[in-house]
Amino acid sequence: MIDLRSDTVTKPTEEMRMAAYKAEVGDDVYGEDPTVRKLEETAASLLGKEDALFVTSGTQGNQIAILVHCTPGQEVILEEESHIFYYESAAASALASVQTRTIPGIRGRMDPGKVERAIRGEDIHYPETGLICIENTHNRAGGAIIPLTNMNEIHTLANKNNIPVHIDGARLFNASIALGVPVSELAKYSESVQICLSKGLGAPVGSLLAGNKAFIRRARKWRKRLGGGMRQAGVIAAPGLIALTKMPGRLGEDHENAKRLAEGASNIQGLSVVNKVETNIVVIDISGTGMDEYQFVERLKERGILGGTFGEGLVRLVTNYDVSRDDIDSAVSHLHKIARDES
Amino acid sequence: MIDLRSDTVTKPTEEMRMAAYKAEVGDDVYGEDPTVRKLEETAASLLGKEDALFVTSGTQGNQIAILVHCTPGQEVILEEESHIFYYESAAASALASVQTRTIPGIRGRMDPGKVERAIRGEDIHYPETGLICIENTHNRAGGAIIPLTNMNEIHTLANKNNIPVHIDGARLFNASIALGVPVSELAKYSESVQICLSKGLGAPVGSLLAGNKAFIRRARKWRKRLGGGMRQAGVIAAPGLIALTKMPGRLGEDHENAKRLAEGASNIQGLSVVNKVETNIVVIDISGTGMDEYQFVERLKERGILGGTFGEGLVRLVTNYDVSRDDIDSAVSHLHKIARDES
Amino acid sequence: MIDLRSDTVTKPTEEMRMAAYKAEVGDDVYGEDPTVRKLEETAASLLGKEDALFVTSGTQGNQIAILVHCTPGQEVILEEESHIFYYESAAASALASVQTRTIPGIRGRMDPGKVERAIRGEDIHYPETGLICIENTHNRAGGAIIPLTNMNEIHTLANKNNIPVHIDGARLFNASIALGVPVSELAKYSESVQICLSKGLGAPVGSLLAGNKAFIRRARKWRKRLGGGMRQAGVIAAPGLIALTKMPGRLGEDHENAKRLAEGASNIQGLSVVNKVETNIVVIDISGTGMDEYQFVERLKERGILGGTFGEGLVRLVTNYDVSRDDIDSAVSHLHKIARDES
Amino acid sequence: MIDLRSDTVTKPTEEMRMAAYKAEVGDDVYGEDPTVRKLEETAASLLGKEDALFVTSGTQGNQIAILVHCTPGQEVILEEESHIFYYESAAASALASVQTRTIPGIRGRMDPGKVERAIRGEDIHYPETGLICIENTHNRAGGAIIPLTNMNEIHTLANKNNIPVHIDGARLFNASIALGVPVSELAKYSESVQICLSKGLGAPVGSLLAGNKAFIRRARKWRKRLGGGMRQAGVIAAPGLIALTKMPGRLGEDHENAKRLAEGASNIQGLSVVNKVETNIVVIDISGTGMDEYQFVERLKERGILGGTFGEGLVRLVTNYDVSRDDIDSAVSHLHKIARDES
Repeated sequence: MIDLRSDTVTKPTEEMRMAAYKAEVGDDVYGEDPTVRKLEETAASLLGKEDALFVTSGTQGNQIAILVHCTPGQEVILEEESHIFYYESAAASALASVQTRTIPGIRGRMDPGKVERAIRGEDIHYPETGLICIENTHNRAGGAIIPLTNMNEIHTLANKNNIPVHIDGARLFNASIALGVPVSELAKYSESVQICLSKGLGAPVGSLLAGNKAFIRRARKWRKRLGGGMRQAGVIAAPGLIALTKMPGRLGEDHENAKRLAEGASNIQGLSVVNKVETNIVVIDISGTGMDEYQFVERLKERGILGGTFGEGLVRLVTNYDVSRDDIDSAVSHLHKIARDES
Repeated sequence: MIDLRSDTVTKPTEEMRMAAYKAEVGDDVYGEDPTVRKLEETAASLLGKEDALFVTSGTQGNQIAILVHCTPGQEVILEEESHIFYYESAAASALASVQTRTIPGIRGRMDPGKVERAIRGEDIHYPETGLICIENTHNRAGGAIIPLTNMNEIHTLANKNNIPVHIDGARLFNASIALGVPVSELAKYSESVQICLSKGLGAPVGSLLAGNKAFIRRARKWRKRLGGGMRQAGVIAAPGLIALTKMPGRLGEDHENAKRLAEGASNIQGLSVVNKVETNIVVIDISGTGMDEYQFVERLKERGILGGTFGEGLVRLVTNYDVSRDDIDSAVSHLHKIARDES
Repeated sequence: MIDLRSDTVTKPTEEMRMAAYKAEVGDDVYGEDPTVRKLEETAASLLGKEDALFVTSGTQGNQIAILVHCTPGQEVILEEESHIFYYESAAASALASVQTRTIPGIRGRMDPGKVERAIRGEDIHYPETGLICIENTHNRAGGAIIPLTNMNEIHTLANKNNIPVHIDGARLFNASIALGVPVSELAKYSESVQICLSKGLGAPVGSLLAGNKAFIRRARKWRKRLGGGMRQAGVIAAPGLIALTKMPGRLGEDHENAKRLAEGASNIQGLSVVNKVETNIVVIDISGTGMDEYQFVERLKERGILGGTFGEGLVRLVTNYDVSRDDIDSAVSHLHKIARDES
Repeated sequence: MIDLRSDTVTKPTEEMRMAAYKAEVGDDVYGEDPTVRKLEETAASLLGKEDALFVTSGTQGNQIAILVHCTPGQEVILEEESHIFYYESAAASALASVQTRTIPGIRGRMDPGKVERAIRGEDIHYPETGLICIENTHNRAGGAIIPLTNMNEIHTLANKNNIPVHIDGARLFNASIALGVPVSELAKYSESVQICLSKGLGAPVGSLLAGNKAFIRRARKWRKRLGGGMRQAGVIAAPGLIALTKMPGRLGEDHENAKRLAEGASNIQGLSVVNKVETNIVVIDISGTGMDEYQFVERLKERGILGGTFGEGLVRLVTNYDVSRDDIDSAVSHLHKIARDES
């Protein structure tokens, strides 16, 4: 099977498995797991933040950030197809009792003027604006990179209004590699940032939430409330550490593969690539084939290729560590056959 | 002063004051206030619902509806400038822990297709859709009437998906009078409806929330939690009963006055009326005068006329019981002078 | 009927009704109702606080205090039969997401040592202690007065730990009159205090929440979220102002009547008064009559006397403005007959 | 070091590490991790429930159970020193907005009569009772076993009142081994049960929440909201599976060691064991030594023994897989020296 459903599906490497096997561990609820601590320190350093916290998922990292930054009855500004709004089961409102204020973006990017106008003034009828979230790269915008200038503008206006910025950086390393800047250059436009180890970086489990020391101290307590406090978590932190330190460099291959896949698909009648492929996500409009997205994904599956539906007429394919350049060529060839068979 | 800021500013009539004075009362927490009960029964009957509950404000009625219909982590679909989303301090998320899913409307009206696409399917990443809200008339759309056909379509698709509909009918009587149909004709496209007594109907305090018996029983408990349970509430229910039974018929005057005001304003250079004036709200773009909305409202005030800002370059004027046809003519004359002086 | 169920059942006096009739009003959401403002200023002054807010009920005042003082995941220390814990439908947890930490009291009074031990230390497993609540007089302890020394001790240790104190003073005027000290002497042992106008003071509706200016500003926003913002609220604030300024002086009569009632009941075979009657509440153990509390209350009702059940074998009788000394003698006579008939 | 602070500190065994290394994995958010699924099915089967869910901690399992069973504004009955109330940072109120109603127990056991009286009747002032929780074995009661008869009585009365029962079985296997009954015999007195793999069973990370299929389906969504959804979770499920299937049998050793430790400590002047040692927890009153609990723990540490404070004058020692019988004898010898040195 060539699994292009997501970069979350990657299996841990031999080295990661061995790291799990050998991990030096302790009780992390007591702050005694040296591997977890090392992972947190490494992440904080890479991201240019004072401290970091190991969490079990990107959702948990994002939600803890919202819980720490906000109080109930505040409003969070975020892009209308952002993961936090779209894919986290309304957790922000369920857990932190905040209202989501969505801004339609262009390729995931919120216009700073729109963001500024969405900030609420002082009025008894209005919630305070408690947080602005940026997702980089932006999943539903097809792995689009939010440019540094846009992040800078939003962060500047947020700070002018005493509002913190949180970056959902589940795929921040993809942006970093594609832009050729360190992740700290991206993370600096925020008061907190979350990165995932289990997407393109290939770790089996885990994410990191970074911010200043006071933020992380409070985050640790909210992690406990959500049940994210683990015991000998070194077993998963150890492969995570490999993911964090050794894997970012290879994301360029995923990006090249994605471009190759997009080019291949573009040349197939009935298919059109709808996103500008900047990182590892390719979104294809398959409606020209006469099939709907569920049928198309089914055909792919029959041919040993896994992809995901992505809304009406759309299929999403995500390159990742377990998919080689040859796999891409094979996938393109199958796409061609499926499209041809149908018409 | 000619007060055109809102229809909430109307003072109680002599008859309402006398009703408060003479009100037959009891302890309503024990269900023993006959005047409150009569008001609730009258409202239920007018709205064509099984039962109703007296609440202290439109916000309280709307929020209780959300608390009863939804569970935490669900999503509520509503228009992006609806009162519940825009003017209730994020209470829906603060109290009921639901996520707001906003749909941009045209004149307050949500396209049924957009509503249907916003309903979430079964997926672990998605919240369930718990409620759809319609605001009729729609305040920020300039008192726009949501047509029966639109309400019918949304209610039909909601029911098909087992989702209840709540009508924020703070100004439902304005829609009823303008359309020439009883309020029950509008309320029938919902599982719950809230109406205000203290807007165009002129009562000093209070709203009613109506629905079926099971809904109102649960609503009563949530009202208690919010501290909306009152003792000898007959004192305010009595003027409310006059508002509900005697005042709807005169809303036509407010609508005529609003049209007269809009026509007058349209003929003034530098002003343009931006809404189609269907009920009692007139929204004027004053940017042609070179003033901003705060300056313009200040000039109005100097001349004894009170209006409200309504976003960038916009001023809102609302006709009401305390404003006569002569007041309108006087207001138009002052608008003319302010616009002329400036240019 | 002689209604001894509660002091909430009192009907407004002629003077209160006339005040409602003549009330000078405005739109209180805009802060323009002069009668509401006067009531708030009078209450703040009497209670020795910077500012006060008119709310629709004691429950609303208490809940807003908790919402302003606390953040989600904190703990509130309060007596195990306090109104906030026992009678407010779990609103503190439902709305403010705080955990209740109950202390069993003696006659409503919490031992300061127990309170201090219940304050949580710094530990990731522990919630922070966010608030301590005192109820004075204490309803379920039979209108028991919490002494100044006890309040002082708790307030001192709370402040030492940077924890605010809220007084649920629904019947604070009863304590004040019985102790012969002004309410400000009681309120000074708190950061916020709530008093009810609609109990012994006889107003139809309303309570006041007092604290410093920053507290009240935030309370006003939470009141809006709960739907407690009212329009021409002067109609109910006017009778409230009479209740606040003219009625406290007469609470001594209720206390004398309660003592008279308790003495009478004590002399009846089969009945025993279980509380030390310090204010206006008498709790009678009626199990010696062979009846249960529901049967006993039914017998009272047949004889034109209304009382309330108060747990197994217990009946509560509350003296109030609508019950005269003669009514008390009549009630005692009926209690005697009921007890005699049964045995 | 002899680490007697908790049974959570145990390091994974060689076999567990190897299992992590070799684990067959998949993306568990897609339900594709075979090891996780096997762990869940094994747990469900052992516990006699329809289905189970892998969660990252006991706290997460307990909180998800509360979120699924309850709605905001309900009340949860639980023992006053239970882990959920005492050690979970008020998460039940923070996340599920429920009020905790605590019952003082005897050795962790709630009197069924007290539980029944704490169930709320129908009254607008009362929250509904939404859940009853039992902790078995009970941590703060010194690992006390809640007997089958007690569980049966509470479950029976709960069901009579249509209230579900949740068992916090973080150490349910300790109860099972000590009583000589399968865990399903204990779990049958509940609608949901949570067990920990990372305490006496020695796994590095993880707990399981079991119940019927509908319950687990809803639990899965709440786990996602809390961020407990993991990707290739087989890496930690694999050692968990060993813990679940191979480790329960050896808990008897921990219990014997605890008894040996208790006997030893009992014979030392200045120390007294305050709990009846039924499982793996020993609580010692050290106040007879003249030291406070912090000093005593410090002395232990100087001698290579780790213990925990457990309230005023109390020290808790917990036997576990990493502590041998010889370690126990050594610990007793050190206890003796510390106590002797001091007096």
